[in-house]
Amino acid sequence: MNFLEERIVKDGIVKEGNVLKVDSFLNHQMDVELFREMGEEFKRRFAGKEINKILTIEASGIGIACVVALVFNVPVVFAKKSKSINVDGDMYVADVESFTHKCKNQVIVSKKYLGKDDHVLIIDDFLANGCALQGLISIVNQAGGTVEGIGIAIEKGFQVGGQVIRNLGYQLESLAIVDSMDASTGEIVFRKQ
Amino acid sequence: MNFLEERIVKDGIVKEGNVLKVDSFLNHQMDVELFREMGEEFKRRFAGKEINKILTIEASGIGIACVVALVFNVPVVFAKKSKSINVDGDMYVADVESFTHKCKNQVIVSKKYLGKDDHVLIIDDFLANGCALQGLISIVNQAGGTVEGIGIAIEKGFQVGGQVIRNLGYQLESLAIVDSMDASTGEIVFRKQ
Repeated sequence: MNFLEERIVKDGIVKEGNVLKVDSFLNHQMDVELFREMGEEFKRRFAGKEINKILTIEASGIGIACVVALVFNVPVVFAKKSKSINVDGDMYVADVESFTHKCKNQVIVSKKYLGKDDHVLIIDDFLANGCALQGLISIVNQAGGTVEGIGIAIEKGFQVGGQVIRNLGYQLESLAIVDSMDASTGEIVFRKQ
Repeated sequence: MNFLEERIVKDGIVKEGNVLKVDSFLNHQMDVELFREMGEEFKRRFAGKEINKILTIEASGIGIACVVALVFNVPVVFAKKSKSINVDGDMYVADVESFTHKCKNQVIVSKKYLGKDDHVLIIDDFLANGCALQGLISIVNQAGGTVEGIGIAIEKGFQVGGQVIRNLGYQLESLAIVDSMDASTGEIVFRKQ
């Protein structure tokens, strides 16, 4: 087990309905030293990639992205969630359907902060069905930029998101891939990487 | 002028209605090296305070808080915005009225992550009328914790928020206090500190 898998086993809580609660260290309370370790691991996994910008999505992706960005020494842009239909022409827009909240949101990024010269590492805390991630990829493509890679903290390997993204040829690195969880025993099975 | 004031003059844009756009480096695209410099300045200004946790509010506060937390070597907790009335008993709740969006939100923090032993530094990107900040202070008080200080990137000194908080006796440190702005000339007047 790597450092993140160990932490998930130690502090994560498995709930009914394939819910993994990691809000003690990842997405409500945030262990920024752990985030730095994640940044260093992403730096190793994306070695050789010319990354000049990190893209993430509000809210819980922002903390990880900012600490990872310190390791990569690049700026972060975070996509904003918006329910409004009327977005002016200065914005890239993608539709994102949330698995958790069963609602559709628009995700927007100002055209000022993403363009054809950008080589982007996308960072997020969770990957499940991958809708948020698809929205972020769409936005980089709209900008004419390059998705150099995708770094995820925890992937739910039993959902379709990761496979779709890998099928599309992207380098997707998830620091922990959960293949199954059992709420009755609390057991978590990670994919061997 | 300090480093943040210089950056605001260089990259900030003054708009009609006392709007200061700093989304090229603070709250959409994020300059994490600048955030680190802010962290080091907060570390100086709150020297001698025993701070064991940083509290902020989603979304744009999270990035600054996480980088500042690396400098302080403490975890971050971010308050979530919620429109739902039904919050279970495991949450601290405060009502927050947004100046920008003219709407009321509930701000919630899990009781697991804030308690009577916590000595809290509150971090946010902007302070205007101070409603968000009042909500965060309320949550620390509900938890029985101690607000050791409040660190803000940009305070709108012509709005009431900062004065209220200082009147209440809190150590509020704003790295840049804008006393006036002129959208026609782009001129920004900072308060001498």
